[in-house]
Amino acid sequence: MQELKILQEHIERELNQLDVSNKPTSLYEPIGYFLSIGGKRIRPILVLMAARLFDNKNPSVINQALAVELFHNFTLIHDDIMDKAPLRRGLATVHEKWNDSQGILSGDVLLIVAYQYLMKTDAKHFGDLFTSFNKMAIEVCEGQQMDMDFEYRNDVQLSEYIEMIRLKTSVLLGCALELGAIVSDAFEHDRTHLYEFGVNIGIAFQIQDDILDVYADASKFGKQVGGDIISNKKTFLYLKAREHANVEQHASFETQLTNSDFEEKVAVVRGLYDAMQVRQMAEETMNHYYDIALQHLNAIEVADKNKAGLLALADYLMNREV
Amino acid sequence: MQELKILQEHIERELNQLDVSNKPTSLYEPIGYFLSIGGKRIRPILVLMAARLFDNKNPSVINQALAVELFHNFTLIHDDIMDKAPLRRGLATVHEKWNDSQGILSGDVLLIVAYQYLMKTDAKHFGDLFTSFNKMAIEVCEGQQMDMDFEYRNDVQLSEYIEMIRLKTSVLLGCALELGAIVSDAFEHDRTHLYEFGVNIGIAFQIQDDILDVYADASKFGKQVGGDIISNKKTFLYLKAREHANVEQHASFETQLTNSDFEEKVAVVRGLYDAMQVRQMAEETMNHYYDIALQHLNAIEVADKNKAGLLALADYLMNREV
Repeated sequence: MQELKILQEHIERELNQLDVSNKPTSLYEPIGYFLSIGGKRIRPILVLMAARLFDNKNPSVINQALAVELFHNFTLIHDDIMDKAPLRRGLATVHEKWNDSQGILSGDVLLIVAYQYLMKTDAKHFGDLFTSFNKMAIEVCEGQQMDMDFEYRNDVQLSEYIEMIRLKTSVLLGCALELGAIVSDAFEHDRTHLYEFGVNIGIAFQIQDDILDVYADASKFGKQVGGDIISNKKTFLYLKAREHANVEQHASFETQLTNSDFEEKVAVVRGLYDAMQVRQMAEETMNHYYDIALQHLNAIEVADKNKAGLLALADYLMNREV
Repeated sequence: MQELKILQEHIERELNQLDVSNKPTSLYEPIGYFLSIGGKRIRPILVLMAARLFDNKNPSVINQALAVELFHNFTLIHDDIMDKAPLRRGLATVHEKWNDSQGILSGDVLLIVAYQYLMKTDAKHFGDLFTSFNKMAIEVCEGQQMDMDFEYRNDVQLSEYIEMIRLKTSVLLGCALELGAIVSDAFEHDRTHLYEFGVNIGIAFQIQDDILDVYADASKFGKQVGGDIISNKKTFLYLKAREHANVEQHASFETQLTNSDFEEKVAVVRGLYDAMQVRQMAEETMNHYYDIALQHLNAIEVADKNKAGLLALADYLMNREV
C-alpha cells in the first residue's frame, strides 16, 4: 500500500518536528523517547484518510491526526505502568527506563498536548471535536479498567469481552475517523457511518489480534506466539473455548493454567482450541464485524473512488501477519 | 466570611450531584470517594468570584468552577501516587485504598471530565477557555516534575523554587479567575490583571504554607508542625536558611538531615531559622507577592464594591492558621 506508506511518513515527519525541548527535561525527554519508538500510526492515518474521503485538502487536518496519536501514546505509557510491562516494540517502556512517576506525569502531559493539537483548527469545529474526543477518551479509560478487572474474574462473558475491546481499542479508531469528518464538514449521517465503520473494524482487528497471538507464523510475528496463552489472558479464543468445553476439556484447561512448561502449555491449549474449532468461530465473529464495517463504509454518500484508500487499509488490517 | 461559606456549600452541592454511578464501578468509585473527602474548594470559588466581579449572573459558570475543582483533584490523586502519600486530609489516598492502577486511571478520567465541564458554556468562549486551561494544565505538570527533581538536587536556587511553586500551585489560581473572566466577557486587560492577581496570591499563599509548617499553632494546624523539616523538604525557609548560613550553621544543618530524633530535629532547625531570621525574610517575600497581587486587583476597572469578595478571600488566605 503506497498511500499508507506516504501517510505514515507524513505522520513521522510531523511527530519528529514536535517540540519536546521544553523544561524540565526530566518531563519532556520521556515523551520524545516514546514518540520516537514508532508504531504503525494507524490512528492518525485514519484522520487523514477521513479528510481525503470528503475531498478535504486543508493541510491543518494533520493537527487532529497528531492529537489522536498523542492521545494513543498517553494511553500506552499509562497502560504500560498498570500492566508492569518492561518492553514495548522491543524497547524499554517509559516507567522502566525512568520510573513510574515520570511515566504518570509525561503521560498526563501528552493527554493535555493532545487537546492543544485538537483545537488547532477553525473554531467552528471546537464543539463537535471536543464532544467526540472527550467521549472517546473516557470510554478508553473504562475499557482499560474493564480489562484489568477481567484478570481477577472467572465469569467474564463473551459479550462483555466484545464491549471491553470496543471501549479499549475500537472507539479510538471510530473517533479518529469522526474527527477527520468533522473538520471536513461532512454530513452528520456520513460522520456516523464513518464512526461505525471505524468501531467495527476495530473490533474485528482486535479479534484478529487474538487469533494471531495463537496462530501467527512465528518467523513473521515479531513477538512470542502464544503469549496470551502463557499469561492466561482472557481473549476471545479463551472465552469461546471455555464456553464450549466439555468436562474433560475444562479439566485440561484448569491443569494448563498453572503449567510452567510454556512450550507444552501453548501446544496443549492450542490443541484444545483446534479440537473445538475455536479459530473458525473467532474468524466468523471477526468477519461479522468486518462485514458490518463495510456496510457502513458503503452507506457513506461519496464517490466510490474516494473510498478506495479506506477499503485498502481495512483489507490490509484484516490480512496482516503481524 | 459568610460569602465564602455560601459559595463553598454551592460547590459541595454540585459535586455531590456529579454522577459517578457509571460502569465500571472500579473506575468511578475512587472518583466519588475522593471528591467527597473535601477540601476548602478555593479554586472553584475563585471562578465564581471572578464572575461576580464582572456582574455575571449566568448560573452556568458553575461548570467552569467544577472543571477547575475536578482538574485539581486529578492532580492530587496522581501526586499522591508519585509522593507515595498514604493519607490526605486524614483519610486514605486513592492508591492506598485501592491501588496505583486505579489511582492512575481514575485520575485520567477526572482530567477528561474536567474538559467536559469546561465546555459546558456558550461555544464562543471555547477558544479562550481551552487555551487558558491547556496552558495551565501543562504548567502544573511541569511544576510537579520540578518539585520531584528538587528532591535529588542540592543546588536548588530560591528563584527556581519560586518558579516551581508558580507552576505547581499558583497558575491554577490565576487560571481559575481567568476562566471566570472569560465566560463573563471581561476585557482582555482586566482578564490579565485578574490572572496575575491569582498567580501572585498563589505564590504568597505557598510561602505562607512553608511558614505555617514550621511556626503554626500545633493545636489549630491539623497536621504535624515541622513536617517539612522532618522530611528535609526544600521549602522557601530551608533554601533561604541555606543561603544565609555561616560555616557552623551549615554543619549543624548537615547533622540534622539524618537526625532520627524528630522532636530534636525540628527544634534545632527551627532554632537555626530563628537565629537567621528566616521567618521574617519569608514574610517579607510573601508580602511582596501579596502587594503585587493587590496592585493587579486594584487595576481592574470595575467598581470597588465588586472587589470586596476577592479582597476578603485574599485576606482570609493570608491570615489563616491552617
